[in-house]
Amino acid sequence: MGIKLGILGLGTVGTGTVQLLQDNVGRHSLLQLVEIHRVGVKSLDKPRDVTLAKSVITTDLESIVNDPEVDIVVELIGGLEPARELILKAIQNGKHVVTANKAVISRFGAEIFTLANRQGVYVMLEAAVGGGIPVIQPLKQSLSVNRIHTVTGIVNGTTNYILTRMQTEGSSFDAVLADAQKLGYAEADPTADVDGWDAADKISILASLAFGGRINREEVSCEGIRQISKTDITYANNLGFVIKLLAIAKKVSPTDCTLSVRVHPTLVPKTHPLANINGVYNAILVEGEPLGQVMFFGPGAGAGATASAVSSDILNLVARLQTGQISAPLDPLLGCSHQDYCQIAPQSELTARFYTRFLTLDQPGVIGKLGTSFGKHGVSLESIVQTGFQDKLAEIVVVTHDVKEGDFKQALEEIRTFEAIDSIPSSLRVL
Amino acid sequence: MGIKLGILGLGTVGTGTVQLLQDNVGRHSLLQLVEIHRVGVKSLDKPRDVTLAKSVITTDLESIVNDPEVDIVVELIGGLEPARELILKAIQNGKHVVTANKAVISRFGAEIFTLANRQGVYVMLEAAVGGGIPVIQPLKQSLSVNRIHTVTGIVNGTTNYILTRMQTEGSSFDAVLADAQKLGYAEADPTADVDGWDAADKISILASLAFGGRINREEVSCEGIRQISKTDITYANNLGFVIKLLAIAKKVSPTDCTLSVRVHPTLVPKTHPLANINGVYNAILVEGEPLGQVMFFGPGAGAGATASAVSSDILNLVARLQTGQISAPLDPLLGCSHQDYCQIAPQSELTARFYTRFLTLDQPGVIGKLGTSFGKHGVSLESIVQTGFQDKLAEIVVVTHDVKEGDFKQALEEIRTFEAIDSIPSSLRVL
Repeated sequence: MGIKLGILGLGTVGTGTVQLLQDNVGRHSLLQLVEIHRVGVKSLDKPRDVTLAKSVITTDLESIVNDPEVDIVVELIGGLEPARELILKAIQNGKHVVTANKAVISRFGAEIFTLANRQGVYVMLEAAVGGGIPVIQPLKQSLSVNRIHTVTGIVNGTTNYILTRMQTEGSSFDAVLADAQKLGYAEADPTADVDGWDAADKISILASLAFGGRINREEVSCEGIRQISKTDITYANNLGFVIKLLAIAKKVSPTDCTLSVRVHPTLVPKTHPLANINGVYNAILVEGEPLGQVMFFGPGAGAGATASAVSSDILNLVARLQTGQISAPLDPLLGCSHQDYCQIAPQSELTARFYTRFLTLDQPGVIGKLGTSFGKHGVSLESIVQTGFQDKLAEIVVVTHDVKEGDFKQALEEIRTFEAIDSIPSSLRVL
Repeated sequence: MGIKLGILGLGTVGTGTVQLLQDNVGRHSLLQLVEIHRVGVKSLDKPRDVTLAKSVITTDLESIVNDPEVDIVVELIGGLEPARELILKAIQNGKHVVTANKAVISRFGAEIFTLANRQGVYVMLEAAVGGGIPVIQPLKQSLSVNRIHTVTGIVNGTTNYILTRMQTEGSSFDAVLADAQKLGYAEADPTADVDGWDAADKISILASLAFGGRINREEVSCEGIRQISKTDITYANNLGFVIKLLAIAKKVSPTDCTLSVRVHPTLVPKTHPLANINGVYNAILVEGEPLGQVMFFGPGAGAGATASAVSSDILNLVARLQTGQISAPLDPLLGCSHQDYCQIAPQSELTARFYTRFLTLDQPGVIGKLGTSFGKHGVSLESIVQTGFQDKLAEIVVVTHDVKEGDFKQALEEIRTFEAIDSIPSSLRVL
């Protein structure tokens, strides 16, 4: 008895998945049970890198999620609609779902998993975060015996590629972005990547699994890398740091599920495990008790890596279907059963270290004025250094100790009004 | 209804596991179903870091594996016997088994899994390799949709700690080993670690899971780190390498399960992901098609990390037991069903790069003679450099291209007979 797939979408990931499933010798033998029953596409005429019977391909995606013969719907069209609606219909029809769609899961996860639990079907999402890195399943299973307190990830390959090249070549953001677009590492509209939205989708999902509660995606604070300059990368380097776009989910309260969930460029100490993750690679660091630190590293995108993750979800479902062990109650280590929302702590209450660069008029006493203002707001400084001149302006770099974000922001607002301050080109968090 | 555990052994790992299970708030809620029913120890009088009712503790380990109330036997006594016998009896009695015992699994895995499959029970072993790193379960599940071609690990914390300190401090092997023993990072008898046996046990297990066949542990070639000198570490560093004890399993033939499985100190390029794994940390790099490279990194030993892995296996079994989805047929993604042995390729047929250091009399023409002999045996050289003098002897360091190991060994045997050769202090593989 074959397990029948209905695949939605035959782009890069869809094509990679079909190729993997069609060429199954030397892979897990259970994949031989898989039958590609229907594949939904936008256009029948487009030339394809895979061979499929004409009867398999259709432009009527709804007919796939309504097809009574389909056991598993594999959603690989991406975006919010019609992905959300097709997933919900598939679940309604009692089909298990595999998806690589971080946007739809991070925004409509509550709706999707509520329905899936009611219908007794699984919604699998290994490919939604970290490409080919197996991180979703370990978070659901092995790691959940720990009290996890932090998940920190480099989960967007495009921005990591850009920052790595800025670091190694000393190039500017705009120059590297333009080249990355030419080479296909960045989209024509790079917003979702460079402004951190994609990373925010992914950390919402990781946080939800790590902390066992739902996350309101709207509450995830998000800062991208457009404002990162060559100058900051050089200063960071001299201070012993590299700049990475980190997605962070952290438990704030030990007793309830209050979290800080955010995406921002961060100064990472060169000795930190995440500092050496370069190029399009992704890595996710999970910290908990009693485990300590574990890190998962691998290709965060690409047809092959994502196809591997999608196929591993299919394999998990096939293993359950063929042993008949898939009926309700759902296995809590494979499904997503949490129903409550985690509280997101207000940014201003959190503590962090900050690196900030000021451009000031070359007047005596500026450093003293900065120091006094920070002190007044309870912001304790690790270092304050006048580092050089730029266009007749003095450049001052400040690194704080751990301080309340609200206090720091207030000090910065005050300092911004000083006559001697020309501008504050950058203010970044330090890990 | 509780799930009753019979735990064998209350040493470091046993104590850590009991502590985790007793202090279960904030962990996966399924752990609340676990009941520590019996715990087997050597001595009832030893002071313990955990509190257990007197009726729970016993010195009669056999009574635990024969206790009809026990659902899961957790074997944490280590060593070959009586561990093997107790595991087999537990299986015979229809109990699921969780073990952290790499020695017994790597040597008696065939016997144990054959019986487990016949009895329809699971034998779980996440803690046997990589401490707290979730690597066993990903190899069984997610990664198995790939055609895996190589698994490379730093899987022994003691030797990695010693090599890291030799590297950073410029100290000798003997000095660091003595200090590591004082600090508790190395055993009084360090043989199993420094001679690579522990790593060989672990790579046998990883190879078996990655390549879906049994491994004859006796056929795994194994070389330790005793002969690594400060001098080699310095030369390696100048050439752009660090020296790591690697455990490697590699597919040699694309069509059948012929493997190379081995443990040896290796020159690793500083840019390689494994080069930055320092101290007692472990890492396992898995390479396959279409995935590419993924790496798992974390604490390779210690009470907390190992307890996390042991408890994750318990959690997996509890999830199946409480949903009633644990009856035969076994889930092939949780069990170990392969029955055939992989072939281990003869060392001499394999290709590798070598770094070799010669001490020679200070005679003209020695480099020429070395070059000629290597050439005669078909060994192509990347570099051959006379690097300095040591006790009136000249030091020559050779790095080869990829060559047949048999050819290289033959050339070395010939060179060893040259009058000008004082000694060959080291010959190491290059990754």
